[in-house]
Amino acid sequence: MDEHAQDGRENDKDDVMKALQYVEVGKPPVIREVPTPEPGPGQVRLKATAAGACHSDSFVMSLSDEDYRASYPLPMTLGHEGAGIVYSPRFLVPLGDLDPADNVALTDAGLTPHHAIKGSLSKLVPGSTAVVIGTGGLGHVAIQILRELTPATVIALDVADEKLALAKEVGAHHAFLSNPDAVDAIREATGSATVTAIFDFVGIQPTADLGAKLSGTETDQVLVGVGATKADVGVLGRAYDATVRAPYWGSRSELMEVLNLARAGRVDVETERFSLDDAPEAYRRLHEGTLRGRAVVTP
Amino acid sequence: MDEHAQDGRENDKDDVMKALQYVEVGKPPVIREVPTPEPGPGQVRLKATAAGACHSDSFVMSLSDEDYRASYPLPMTLGHEGAGIVYSPRFLVPLGDLDPADNVALTDAGLTPHHAIKGSLSKLVPGSTAVVIGTGGLGHVAIQILRELTPATVIALDVADEKLALAKEVGAHHAFLSNPDAVDAIREATGSATVTAIFDFVGIQPTADLGAKLSGTETDQVLVGVGATKADVGVLGRAYDATVRAPYWGSRSELMEVLNLARAGRVDVETERFSLDDAPEAYRRLHEGTLRGRAVVTP
Amino acid sequence: MDEHAQDGRENDKDDVMKALQYVEVGKPPVIREVPTPEPGPGQVRLKATAAGACHSDSFVMSLSDEDYRASYPLPMTLGHEGAGIVYSPRFLVPLGDLDPADNVALTDAGLTPHHAIKGSLSKLVPGSTAVVIGTGGLGHVAIQILRELTPATVIALDVADEKLALAKEVGAHHAFLSNPDAVDAIREATGSATVTAIFDFVGIQPTADLGAKLSGTETDQVLVGVGATKADVGVLGRAYDATVRAPYWGSRSELMEVLNLARAGRVDVETERFSLDDAPEAYRRLHEGTLRGRAVVTP
Amino acid sequence: MDEHAQDGRENDKDDVMKALQYVEVGKPPVIREVPTPEPGPGQVRLKATAAGACHSDSFVMSLSDEDYRASYPLPMTLGHEGAGIVYSPRFLVPLGDLDPADNVALTDAGLTPHHAIKGSLSKLVPGSTAVVIGTGGLGHVAIQILRELTPATVIALDVADEKLALAKEVGAHHAFLSNPDAVDAIREATGSATVTAIFDFVGIQPTADLGAKLSGTETDQVLVGVGATKADVGVLGRAYDATVRAPYWGSRSELMEVLNLARAGRVDVETERFSLDDAPEAYRRLHEGTLRGRAVVTP
Repeated sequence: MDEHAQDGRENDKDDVMKALQYVEVGKPPVIREVPTPEPGPGQVRLKATAAGACHSDSFVMSLSDEDYRASYPLPMTLGHEGAGIVYSPRFLVPLGDLDPADNVALTDAGLTPHHAIKGSLSKLVPGSTAVVIGTGGLGHVAIQILRELTPATVIALDVADEKLALAKEVGAHHAFLSNPDAVDAIREATGSATVTAIFDFVGIQPTADLGAKLSGTETDQVLVGVGATKADVGVLGRAYDATVRAPYWGSRSELMEVLNLARAGRVDVETERFSLDDAPEAYRRLHEGTLRGRAVVTP
Repeated sequence: MDEHAQDGRENDKDDVMKALQYVEVGKPPVIREVPTPEPGPGQVRLKATAAGACHSDSFVMSLSDEDYRASYPLPMTLGHEGAGIVYSPRFLVPLGDLDPADNVALTDAGLTPHHAIKGSLSKLVPGSTAVVIGTGGLGHVAIQILRELTPATVIALDVADEKLALAKEVGAHHAFLSNPDAVDAIREATGSATVTAIFDFVGIQPTADLGAKLSGTETDQVLVGVGATKADVGVLGRAYDATVRAPYWGSRSELMEVLNLARAGRVDVETERFSLDDAPEAYRRLHEGTLRGRAVVTP
Repeated sequence: MDEHAQDGRENDKDDVMKALQYVEVGKPPVIREVPTPEPGPGQVRLKATAAGACHSDSFVMSLSDEDYRASYPLPMTLGHEGAGIVYSPRFLVPLGDLDPADNVALTDAGLTPHHAIKGSLSKLVPGSTAVVIGTGGLGHVAIQILRELTPATVIALDVADEKLALAKEVGAHHAFLSNPDAVDAIREATGSATVTAIFDFVGIQPTADLGAKLSGTETDQVLVGVGATKADVGVLGRAYDATVRAPYWGSRSELMEVLNLARAGRVDVETERFSLDDAPEAYRRLHEGTLRGRAVVTP
Repeated sequence: MDEHAQDGRENDKDDVMKALQYVEVGKPPVIREVPTPEPGPGQVRLKATAAGACHSDSFVMSLSDEDYRASYPLPMTLGHEGAGIVYSPRFLVPLGDLDPADNVALTDAGLTPHHAIKGSLSKLVPGSTAVVIGTGGLGHVAIQILRELTPATVIALDVADEKLALAKEVGAHHAFLSNPDAVDAIREATGSATVTAIFDFVGIQPTADLGAKLSGTETDQVLVGVGATKADVGVLGRAYDATVRAPYWGSRSELMEVLNLARAGRVDVETERFSLDDAPEAYRRLHEGTLRGRAVVTP
């Protein structure tokens, strides 16, 4: 995502820049000076204007030394949800007049739920019910996209009361605590103990189990959150034609759709802003679960 | 559509009933006593509780003597948009606790636009634009369904200012007079002179021509209104991958979806009520174009 | 499914009939005389002309006493895959001039794979690969339907050489033994170790695990066989956008499509015929895995 | 489309090349020496290895002086269906080991019908019927794609007996002369006078009228041939839910699908080869309608 009208060329000579890096397994990430990278063939370099803090970074940093080293480099620069000014815009998606810090989170926290929801769109007809588990950075955007794209009754589940309050503010028809009573609460609210689709932005075993309980005939259980889960599948383990899938991010045209929603004022990401020097604090708050919406880091 | 909980059996012995019939070509329809019909195999008889007055009846009554007799019987009982109490409910759609007179119009004025819109649903993504031509009985419901089912920007076109006011009340983002300036007004409102889909509830040559003008690459022009129109088609006559289609009514499961929208309070048909004895007046007002929403006749 | 042209009324007076019944848990089913049932409201009685023997019957008869009694009655009449002559045809699908014994198996062994395949049809584009695990009664029909409906390369997996031979006869491009070497064989045949869709007509833990191994980005793992299986799901347990689902039977319009294929000579069920008195033998051979195609019982 | 493994750099110094150009309206195109073009930003220059001759070129050359000058330049270099060796491959589709001259036609004569067919794929279920009007360069590929991608009964219509023979060779179930008797011939062959989809590769008024006659409920009339046509549309002009559309070329991923079909040996373009010096003759034969399949020009 880029801000296409401006020209970032004056920065080309800088040979060092600041980055938030994960340097030692098990330790918090730190701000360091790093060499400014040179773009290779087919690449562009952006002057970052904003970046979101994401649970998947947080998840990777929670891995054991052995698991981490099996898949990831050290040091690793954090922040894959970014907006910037680009020297030569090519196959990037222009922000236009959208504010970078307000909207950068749409590149992941907007695009990922949008792609997840589009995969179940044909089932979300009038009379259908969609459950959103986890109403943080991605979940609170998912609720808004569901309301814009579908006539489904939207039910939010979370473990924190203030997140349920946010869920209702952004359009959930119902919001319940995510515990064993949730199934009864949903049955009472909708007249049915099973739902049409479950979008699980937590994706750990307890939420996956809850989703399985809410699955009836043709239900889509969509595991978006980054976790390791096991599930009963097959004819004896799940209702007929029920599906389980784990979508991931989305396409460039889907990102353009998400930005169209933001441009029309129909999706609004709740953000807390942090300076680059405070970026480690953003990840700490993310890990604690005390952020409202999405943390965004600006240089 | 039926009210399933009640039992209409006490009426089985009546051998005459009132009906609004078209008896003579070119004359207004009249109320007559007719023999109560006996349901044949696979049929049910309903005790009507409400019926909507529809443009297609009006259209048929405007045919010349020759055209009429080629396709239709005399006398012909009017009113195909009905709710009733049924002796033995079989493959009918239950109204449940919906009020028959408020909702009977959904069986045509709701179902027909719903089916028309579903055929273009995959194109009505964020950033898309849907135009509704004619915001009367069907059109004002189409606007509400578009707002519930899609994130499209909805633009209403009509020739009467009070219908444009109704269009905005029920959710149109923009409403313009349906004249040659409409293309410019749409360009100004959306930034593009062509749109994603046109739902034409008038369906006569001038509205079809306007729709063709608004058609760009991949546009769906959907002719719902009952009229005879000619159009340029083919690679040289229309933008690439643009389509023209004329949907008709809808399926039983689509009707259930429409009733689900009504039950959830998301679609609301604007109605004017008439007694059976005033039914001819309902058709006169329909023909004049002075109804607000849909005329509904109750016994 | 019925043979609509004939009239079964002359049989209405018979008050006993023969049935294959499962009477005692753990014992083979036996032929018994039972009272001819009276059809209730919305039901019809058929004079059976042929019935197929199905793995799901076999599976149910393999349950422990406790599991069986939790879900099923004793005695239980076997044979849910049937063709017959009907007194009053209503919402049944006419066989037309198709031979009942040759085609009765299509009502389950044809319809079930057809419905399973249709759910993945949009992914089975040119260059795609479909794996069929288990090429017995359902699997050997699945191969034919895949060849008719899609341009996918079709790969059959089974544990018996004679079933692999049948798979190739009915159109599989490749057929391999279903063992740990299958992944390598598929990689060599197609250039990729993962495939587009897996249709698993066995549905037990080892075949589900093999299917998981063959799953890459956007792969559909479709568990049709009746078994109890666990699977890794979620972002860390499976490739991105991969799905798992367990379809079940199919719709009436899908059955009409299957019969259309048979009528056009494009699908042909391999059958072994048994008299009603030999029906227990059919189930014994089914359990042994020594049937070629589908066993069909005729009165 | 490119042959990616080779390196065309040695040709960079050539400053003139041969081209087939339309120089004077109403005169046949001629071979001329032209300056070798320099690729601009986002462009590549190919060393052409083969190019197909297409009806749309022929159509453009048949325009009156006035119509031509309103839309096209003079001189105009012909040949938009090309394969070549490229200096820097970017967003091109690699041919791999496919022979350029044998397969170049797939970039238009394969891709265009493939895209046209994909738009109607969901309707082409078992029991459906697809009509191909015009079985030349595009039509004879369309027949093969229909047979690979759908279970539809495929009926070819053309005015020349030798083209009908080619149609049957490449897989059409039936082939009839394209005249007023065709409707009866189709009714006799399929049991119905209307069909599921019509792919019209001629696209002039008489074939469009024939397609309209073959249109019933939900029929797709797909006008691919480059012509100017008028049609009755709307509820009174066409059966319910029938559509008319004019697709155009296709997407990059669809081209990859077409090449996958060719690679698997399931689609085979019938070609007649011409040297660049004989290219005007190729266009003359195309205009005459005496080519078998597609004319391909090689340098």
